[in-house]
Amino acid sequence: MKSAQFPNPIYLVNPKYTDEDLLGYKFYDSISSIPDETPVDLAIIAVPAQITPSIIEEIGKKGVSFAHIFSSGFSELDSEFEKKGKRLEEELIRIASKYGIRILGPNCMGVIAPKSRLTFLMPMRAMQRLNDANKEKDSENFEGLEDLGDLINTGQVAFISQSGGIAFTHGMISQSLGYSFSKMVSFGNQIDLDLIDFLRYFKDDPDTKIIAMYIENIKKDGNEFVRLLKETTAKKPVIIWKGGIFQTGHQAVMSHTGGLAGNYKMWESMASQTGVILVNNFLELTDMVQTCLTYPIPQTLGTAVLSMSGGTAVESTDEVERNGLIMPLLSQELTQKISQFIPEINSNLKNPLEFGGKGSLEHTIKIIGMLAEESQFSSIIMASSPEYLVFGRGNSLDDYIKEISNALPPNSGKLLLCVFSNIIMFEQGIKMNLEFRSRSLSNGFVAYRSTAAAAKSCYRWWKYGKYLEKRKSNL
Amino acid sequence: MKSAQFPNPIYLVNPKYTDEDLLGYKFYDSISSIPDETPVDLAIIAVPAQITPSIIEEIGKKGVSFAHIFSSGFSELDSEFEKKGKRLEEELIRIASKYGIRILGPNCMGVIAPKSRLTFLMPMRAMQRLNDANKEKDSENFEGLEDLGDLINTGQVAFISQSGGIAFTHGMISQSLGYSFSKMVSFGNQIDLDLIDFLRYFKDDPDTKIIAMYIENIKKDGNEFVRLLKETTAKKPVIIWKGGIFQTGHQAVMSHTGGLAGNYKMWESMASQTGVILVNNFLELTDMVQTCLTYPIPQTLGTAVLSMSGGTAVESTDEVERNGLIMPLLSQELTQKISQFIPEINSNLKNPLEFGGKGSLEHTIKIIGMLAEESQFSSIIMASSPEYLVFGRGNSLDDYIKEISNALPPNSGKLLLCVFSNIIMFEQGIKMNLEFRSRSLSNGFVAYRSTAAAAKSCYRWWKYGKYLEKRKSNL
Repeated sequence: MKSAQFPNPIYLVNPKYTDEDLLGYKFYDSISSIPDETPVDLAIIAVPAQITPSIIEEIGKKGVSFAHIFSSGFSELDSEFEKKGKRLEEELIRIASKYGIRILGPNCMGVIAPKSRLTFLMPMRAMQRLNDANKEKDSENFEGLEDLGDLINTGQVAFISQSGGIAFTHGMISQSLGYSFSKMVSFGNQIDLDLIDFLRYFKDDPDTKIIAMYIENIKKDGNEFVRLLKETTAKKPVIIWKGGIFQTGHQAVMSHTGGLAGNYKMWESMASQTGVILVNNFLELTDMVQTCLTYPIPQTLGTAVLSMSGGTAVESTDEVERNGLIMPLLSQELTQKISQFIPEINSNLKNPLEFGGKGSLEHTIKIIGMLAEESQFSSIIMASSPEYLVFGRGNSLDDYIKEISNALPPNSGKLLLCVFSNIIMFEQGIKMNLEFRSRSLSNGFVAYRSTAAAAKSCYRWWKYGKYLEKRKSNL
Repeated sequence: MKSAQFPNPIYLVNPKYTDEDLLGYKFYDSISSIPDETPVDLAIIAVPAQITPSIIEEIGKKGVSFAHIFSSGFSELDSEFEKKGKRLEEELIRIASKYGIRILGPNCMGVIAPKSRLTFLMPMRAMQRLNDANKEKDSENFEGLEDLGDLINTGQVAFISQSGGIAFTHGMISQSLGYSFSKMVSFGNQIDLDLIDFLRYFKDDPDTKIIAMYIENIKKDGNEFVRLLKETTAKKPVIIWKGGIFQTGHQAVMSHTGGLAGNYKMWESMASQTGVILVNNFLELTDMVQTCLTYPIPQTLGTAVLSMSGGTAVESTDEVERNGLIMPLLSQELTQKISQFIPEINSNLKNPLEFGGKGSLEHTIKIIGMLAEESQFSSIIMASSPEYLVFGRGNSLDDYIKEISNALPPNSGKLLLCVFSNIIMFEQGIKMNLEFRSRSLSNGFVAYRSTAAAAKSCYRWWKYGKYLEKRKSNL
């Protein structure tokens, strides 16, 4: 929070270090000894579970109305026969109600609110420094903490996560994915504030354009959740990754945040009722966020695939069709127009289009423009990695990005989906792919990690559009 | 070939450059003018398609018995109504038969035979230099071509590929995957030497431990192919990636190497009859090669998953079970033994095992040793990327690799499957992952790109084992 330049006072409380200080902040021996001049909005509690009720009591007396309980060791540890954690949680709720305190957690990372400069992220460099400092028993050596960079940028994505680890990872990699968050919540055991509260908030949050969630279980009313989702998807896309869909997965979920997972079929039927975009894992979630942020909804499933080599063309086609898109043939007129500048030997001007030996950046851009005019294609997939046209054909990445970002006619309503190679081969290529990806969204396209990921995301985005259409026609 | 230090004479033939030379090799104006002192074993033909018959005639007269036709522009361009390419191929065959010449191709990259130092690969650095030289019209500037590095190492994997692009990519990335080739063949339109010829050769090749193939179509006798596969899988694993399984994919296949793709169901039934390991794309193929090279065949589907965070544990479990493995619970005794050094708060000692905050490298290795003693687990998956224990816990990658490579008791018959993060976040992490992966196989483990890839490969390897068992019991 210091490195995020949190503008308001921060009070550290720990009787062990009374009157000492850390990073310029003074330690207090108790909550009651915090000066009264500034009211305290939020208590972040990171003490052993069994002490938390007494801390809630103390902050209640102090007049703090929000508590984020970071600590774990509650119902997530309970077994069928032993409900110690559950009883501890009930005690927390009882005390909190007495004082009107709202609780986030326990067993969670808390809130990121870039506008208020509240965060739990830390730049990787600072993490390494912190680790070095720990090893050297030199806790003063916190250089690097000043620079939080883009991690505290305000963006348009809300992320609600039942897992703190996944929230942390999502926050950390968002920079290389080219997007930022309006707010993020890691909510853990949700003994008070829960999924539904956060969804309700983000539904009407003007800063939030897209809502993404990682959910393991719902503790309260499923009907209310479904009703709220329906209201929300009418306003903005909601992406849900449901973790713990297999039998052992359920066991993992129970230990993780102390609830029951529910049947996946039920989640699928919920998604089709509400227009929620359901994804299967973390990378599918980030793919989908990028897609919703960047592109108009595709009007049809028709896609044209551009490839540099025959083998890639065959592979891409399998991956595209396996993931729900369809590949109409090019019109004869268009094939003829293209064959005026791409000779037919070692090329294929049907769909996928393949023109390895003769593919220049200029030709590629020209072909994209022509494809965008054809009504049977709502999207165009660049199945070859930029390495090919950059290293192989002597272009710079700057030129490549500039040309790609201007390849479609303005307001065409079409989607130009790019792919970068996930075949990690040599350092220069990796760096280029990393830069290509981190600059993609700001240049109006997504650089997907595979053709399959591009096709799957495009298909799901189309499906959301179909849901909205159907809903409109039912009104 | 020069940079691979090909030890025998190379004759360049091109009447345009008669008496000039390139890289120290002299140009001849015709095949007949090549000196007779050394017999020529192989002609590599890269002239326009329509001239190829006359070249075959010439090499026939010269007494060359093998021709690799690199050129394309044959039956792969034919349409339903226009069979010009097919006729050209028939002419080639007619002339070749007259002289007893065997043809590889046309429309292919040819052969890599590391022992003979015959190759079509080129180090990426040399490719860039070549490209710069082309731009500067300075064809003499071929520095860097000398250094072919590991690309010409002799290994244990045979790769038979109908696509030249895929063969090239496979050759190039093999270094970062930690394996090399006994031989590689890109066979293209297979008008003479075909898939079956190469399979027959590799079946009995003592240098080849594993056969991997990329196939788009079979031109000849399917029954002979099946019979041969059965013979081969009894001796060594055969991995097949069948490209072009969807309808448009078929179109792509037809254009690519001029044949028909066949039904995928047929391929699946062929795989279950013959014990072939069928994969769906390039990365699955390389995963599977690494798996077969590195591990014993797993005795059961039971796996234990080690994870550092709760969210990853849930995600890994879904991915593991979605891909066919099963996750038995740990015995109570073992859980108790582990809980003596891993406290239970924020941990989960069932399966997946999750011990984020308390996980040291030492503890992780100790737990792996204990799991290896349990009969219900044939494999153990390290679902967390090494970054966690290296950056987060102050170990070096060297220590990490050393400890991992010694974690299993000798001859345990168990598989320790590692995963590296494909969440590309920061350069230092990428470099570490790249190094981790390239050093994995020589240290006795595979570093998979995802938990899903690890589980899928392990499942397929187990299935091959089941096939062998069943076959044995039927004898």
